[in-house]
Amino acid sequence: MIIDCHGHYTTAPPQLEEWRALQLAGKSPDAPKISDDELRDSLEKAQLKLQRERGADMTIFSPRASKMEHHVGTPEVSLQWSRVCNDIIQRIVSLYPKNFVGVCQLPQSPGVPPANCIPELERCVKEFGFIGCNLNPDPSGGHWNAPPLTDKYWYPIYEKMVELDVPAMIHVTSSCNPAFHATGAHYINADTTAFMQLIQGNLFKDFPTLKFIIPHGGGAVPFHWGRYRGLAQDMKRPALTEHLLNNVFFDTCVYHQPGIELLFKVIPLKNILFGSEMVGAVRSIDPETGNFFDDTKIYVDKLGLSDAELKAVYEGNIRHVYPRISKALGA
Amino acid sequence: MIIDCHGHYTTAPPQLEEWRALQLAGKSPDAPKISDDELRDSLEKAQLKLQRERGADMTIFSPRASKMEHHVGTPEVSLQWSRVCNDIIQRIVSLYPKNFVGVCQLPQSPGVPPANCIPELERCVKEFGFIGCNLNPDPSGGHWNAPPLTDKYWYPIYEKMVELDVPAMIHVTSSCNPAFHATGAHYINADTTAFMQLIQGNLFKDFPTLKFIIPHGGGAVPFHWGRYRGLAQDMKRPALTEHLLNNVFFDTCVYHQPGIELLFKVIPLKNILFGSEMVGAVRSIDPETGNFFDDTKIYVDKLGLSDAELKAVYEGNIRHVYPRISKALGA
Repeated sequence: MIIDCHGHYTTAPPQLEEWRALQLAGKSPDAPKISDDELRDSLEKAQLKLQRERGADMTIFSPRASKMEHHVGTPEVSLQWSRVCNDIIQRIVSLYPKNFVGVCQLPQSPGVPPANCIPELERCVKEFGFIGCNLNPDPSGGHWNAPPLTDKYWYPIYEKMVELDVPAMIHVTSSCNPAFHATGAHYINADTTAFMQLIQGNLFKDFPTLKFIIPHGGGAVPFHWGRYRGLAQDMKRPALTEHLLNNVFFDTCVYHQPGIELLFKVIPLKNILFGSEMVGAVRSIDPETGNFFDDTKIYVDKLGLSDAELKAVYEGNIRHVYPRISKALGA
Repeated sequence: MIIDCHGHYTTAPPQLEEWRALQLAGKSPDAPKISDDELRDSLEKAQLKLQRERGADMTIFSPRASKMEHHVGTPEVSLQWSRVCNDIIQRIVSLYPKNFVGVCQLPQSPGVPPANCIPELERCVKEFGFIGCNLNPDPSGGHWNAPPLTDKYWYPIYEKMVELDVPAMIHVTSSCNPAFHATGAHYINADTTAFMQLIQGNLFKDFPTLKFIIPHGGGAVPFHWGRYRGLAQDMKRPALTEHLLNNVFFDTCVYHQPGIELLFKVIPLKNILFGSEMVGAVRSIDPETGNFFDDTKIYVDKLGLSDAELKAVYEGNIRHVYPRISKALGA
């Protein structure tokens, strides 16, 4: 069983964008009209096709991250948009229960305490059977004016996550700051920033069972693992293995062999979850290898891991981090 | 000859901070009173001691990066502070002309076009013989409201750099944004952000001889080299080797062996300059190796490079990027 922990619905039919444009124009449209056949078609020629070609069995699937756009519009706009996007993920999971399991977008909004996300999280987990959420550490879209993730500001949503036994992937959306390219700077910076916030704080003392996935291989963290070990030591924090690595996990969205090799060299295997983020940030073929940049399974398979290690990265670690996935897997 | 391209004067006597406090209190003090003996003492027991112990010959030395604090006070405050800090570097270089060569802090200020930095750059290069400058892509200290480095906003300072034949190290200062730890998030994010800005733009078409050093091993860039190659390709940019690598260089401030190995695996050797940033972000000993985290020469020496390759990283590439160093080296 090979589970991809990081997939977004990036290939929706144009009706979704049209609905969004109407919403932002203040038109309060009804739910977007997308037929089941249109949903199937958008997936069969993209995520499902690639899932089959690349040999994965299931994708943990959430709304398109770059379009969460928590910084656009009011909190009510964010809530309505989140519900529309999560409803579509729920329909996809119903159409393909063996291929997709849902993770929800949260109706965050700049300056609004994240407790406002609890009802939507509960709806998605309890009514739809979703197994996690995407939590944006910077709902401002590149201005970074929210308190660090270790601040009590965030505690209500963590309490609900713990109660529901669902993890969060720490994932920003697009950037409205021209300094930051979305997938080339803002995403990677957010991963790095979140990890450093967690080093500075002591969040998992208060929430020993809370779990975060830091995507894109953890941003800059594995490359600078010595820096982070050293900073933690200089700040009199416990060793990172003890301070963070019972609660923080990295995916394999690193789009070249040497990067994946480094990830597996420095991060304990138990903290690595297979992910590709396809169809996403980089959609073309690497001329150096002839493979798609985001076909991360090829890199992982080349590492020479044992069968038990591969099973952990492809399935076991993901089951551990997303306990509610077992129901979707029928086990 | 072993040259460390990345050193800051982080060990100044307390008079410097006292002067800064008076300045910020609006007291307009005279220049800080630090004797030559006090300067020597602050270096002999720190940077010079470590330079000798670790086997380096010379350090490219600039004012303490975290204290540049362009976001504190008015443009006039930034200018006065820059002049004070650069004057001290000049004294250090005069005391130890074989051990240190100067790079200047620029009097940047949020919202002020960087053309205001030209007189101080000229003073430091022409009067003091400095060989480069530190350019802050985010003078706001973590709010990132300056235009990208490829914007014409920055062109006047680039024109002067080209005229003087000096490179810039792209280096932020401390963060006044609680989301960003300075050395653990803001520094690394800035490196990553700057590189992505350069991918998006076409700066070196306008300035074919302009040179930037991106410190801390290039932030997240080498770890995500596939992502950056792929993003450039998807954006129809030339290959990164052609688009950026005649003008952009990385230092070796990566504080563990696997990180240094990745750096040298993916980045062409000609683009790597030896650097340690000691005494800086991480000041303790790695319990896994028994060596100081920031003793980066140990990592480089372990790579098994040829003598010619080592000479390039330790000296040749640095001479190429900092042409004015040849005068300081007497060659």
